[in-house]
Amino acid sequence: MRPVAILGIGQTKIDELWEKSIRDIAVEALLAALQDSGRESADGLFVGNMMSGTLNGQNNLAPMIADWAGLKGAEAVKVEAACGSGGAAFRSALMAVASGELDSALAVGVEKMVDRPPHEVTAALATAADADYETDMGVSFVGLNALIMRRYMHEYGWKHADFAPFAINAHANAMHNPFARLHQKISLENFEKSAMIATPINLLDASPIGDGAAAVYLVPADRIPAGLRIEVAGSASATDTLAIHDRPEALFLTAAYKSAQAAYSQAQAKPEDIDVFELHDAFTIMSALSLEACGFAERGKGVQLGLDGEITPQGRIPVTTRGGLKARGHPVGATGVYQIVEVVQQLRGECAETQVSDARIGMAQNIGGSGATIVTHILRKE
Amino acid sequence: MRPVAILGIGQTKIDELWEKSIRDIAVEALLAALQDSGRESADGLFVGNMMSGTLNGQNNLAPMIADWAGLKGAEAVKVEAACGSGGAAFRSALMAVASGELDSALAVGVEKMVDRPPHEVTAALATAADADYETDMGVSFVGLNALIMRRYMHEYGWKHADFAPFAINAHANAMHNPFARLHQKISLENFEKSAMIATPINLLDASPIGDGAAAVYLVPADRIPAGLRIEVAGSASATDTLAIHDRPEALFLTAAYKSAQAAYSQAQAKPEDIDVFELHDAFTIMSALSLEACGFAERGKGVQLGLDGEITPQGRIPVTTRGGLKARGHPVGATGVYQIVEVVQQLRGECAETQVSDARIGMAQNIGGSGATIVTHILRKE
Repeated sequence: MRPVAILGIGQTKIDELWEKSIRDIAVEALLAALQDSGRESADGLFVGNMMSGTLNGQNNLAPMIADWAGLKGAEAVKVEAACGSGGAAFRSALMAVASGELDSALAVGVEKMVDRPPHEVTAALATAADADYETDMGVSFVGLNALIMRRYMHEYGWKHADFAPFAINAHANAMHNPFARLHQKISLENFEKSAMIATPINLLDASPIGDGAAAVYLVPADRIPAGLRIEVAGSASATDTLAIHDRPEALFLTAAYKSAQAAYSQAQAKPEDIDVFELHDAFTIMSALSLEACGFAERGKGVQLGLDGEITPQGRIPVTTRGGLKARGHPVGATGVYQIVEVVQQLRGECAETQVSDARIGMAQNIGGSGATIVTHILRKE
Repeated sequence: MRPVAILGIGQTKIDELWEKSIRDIAVEALLAALQDSGRESADGLFVGNMMSGTLNGQNNLAPMIADWAGLKGAEAVKVEAACGSGGAAFRSALMAVASGELDSALAVGVEKMVDRPPHEVTAALATAADADYETDMGVSFVGLNALIMRRYMHEYGWKHADFAPFAINAHANAMHNPFARLHQKISLENFEKSAMIATPINLLDASPIGDGAAAVYLVPADRIPAGLRIEVAGSASATDTLAIHDRPEALFLTAAYKSAQAAYSQAQAKPEDIDVFELHDAFTIMSALSLEACGFAERGKGVQLGLDGEITPQGRIPVTTRGGLKARGHPVGATGVYQIVEVVQQLRGECAETQVSDARIGMAQNIGGSGATIVTHILRKE
């Protein structure tokens, strides 16, 4: 297996992009990544997307994007792992280049969600859960996360306001990211008074959907001079039961633990070595669980990192430095690729106000379903 | 890149499986492949499926199957390339093992189609075409293939009955495949009198949908003693424009040509070396186009191979030896994996009445959309 590095990145603003179709958005991000890479084409395209078949009437999405971006017959497939689709597509692109099958590959994450009415989008998002044993019982995707959060608060004695730092940090960081969906600072008071969605999850615990696409260009590491490389030092994916009630421990993200451990081992790194961590804060509870499973906090103590100010760009383990799912936005199948793009921006030192000083090793973790599929990547400046 | 070989295979009968869910079917094929391989688990699962989000209300399909099959947290993703999903999933599994990332991988193709009413299935199948520029204009997927077939007949002077051998051969071969959906011999008279669907495509030009799953277990080639190996000697995927009207030549499968040439080159083989060819006969016209693009006939002459009896198990280039899409059945996302399973059966010499004598090199070609994504594999007994 040969080492692989990132040559270029691209992204669109996340928003309600009424005047653009799914192909427009995907191609915009893809062309930005090509331009950033100084390339005109790629051998392969791996598209992360969850719902194009349901919300856009379009399967066979990958050849369409390859065609419209001028990739001239390149191999192209879609990879789906619910909200973890972007990370899974990046990993597929990585394996294609690492295996020697392809000499270059693009990973593009894209989702176009706002064209359909909200009840259709809610139903489509619920397909990330177990259709027969969860969804058909009437629980929505936010409802499942609410059950986990409520249990976590009960087990460990946290109150709702203790989760506020995750949302406040994300919104503060997004102020400086022109691609973020939400540009509004929030306070603890805003957080506490926000409208309830599924108790105890309120509006400011939850990430907004949106239309958007992000892209990354991968090449064998030896094609980039040493000193300028951002290498994929660790990559792993693991799964857990799809239904939460089948797990022995509902409050521990076993798949996050497994994939993080494998990625640490490949990168020969420990949690203390990670300078920046783009985690999957679909809901504030997921930030806490992700920090715990990846070894940044003991079980039940993830929330404390926020309260102690350790998750800001100046803290011990900066998270959601570009706004995270919470404020950058969560176009589901695209999110995992946005996370990689943002870690690259940090390692390149392009983040200005939210730059983590001397960032050399970054991690991204993308979650599909309520922890069913978890993909973890570690990138390192070499 | 390390060589990869096939350790085991599994499949379900294709039928209207009313009493089984998509998870039941997938797990049945997967467990059969595990048993055939003498293994209890695998490092990764790559699921080929097109429509689970639309027809079964289930995305995040791969972790669900991994969970229910007892794969204990293994990496699992879904790969989608419309009707080419199975071949694409097999190729993803191959790259994962070839790269050294995983030491074993399962490719499972599955589709559960008959639970939904026919108009919903027709609409879901149409998502394989270009939603904005084909489907929204009112053309169905069979309609697109009918346009190609009509043009082919016009350009090259063939009449409809000339396509009959493709259907007759497929039905004759399926008689001996217990997993096939259709077990009925057909005659030229049946073919000519069959009900018209979209002129000139009639019922016996078209493959039936169905519920079904197939599975293949992949390992590094050196884990199997020489002499007993079925090695993946060639693997390639290529794309064409999604919409047919964007192609300079609507009657030539450019992506089939590209992927076949790449696979031949990797396998150091020529068309004359191929002993058996499981092609993608979703409609009879596709058999002709596939044979031409892969170098078995000149342009416009693919039909002649059928008329000359060269496509039967005793002919020069045996195709659809287990019934093909036409009579084995076409559970879309599963088809590409069924093709691999069937080539393995031929190379193992397990096909009795439809066995190709001394089969040593086999090819499988899986098509997504009207030729937009084409994945070609060459397997060789070593």
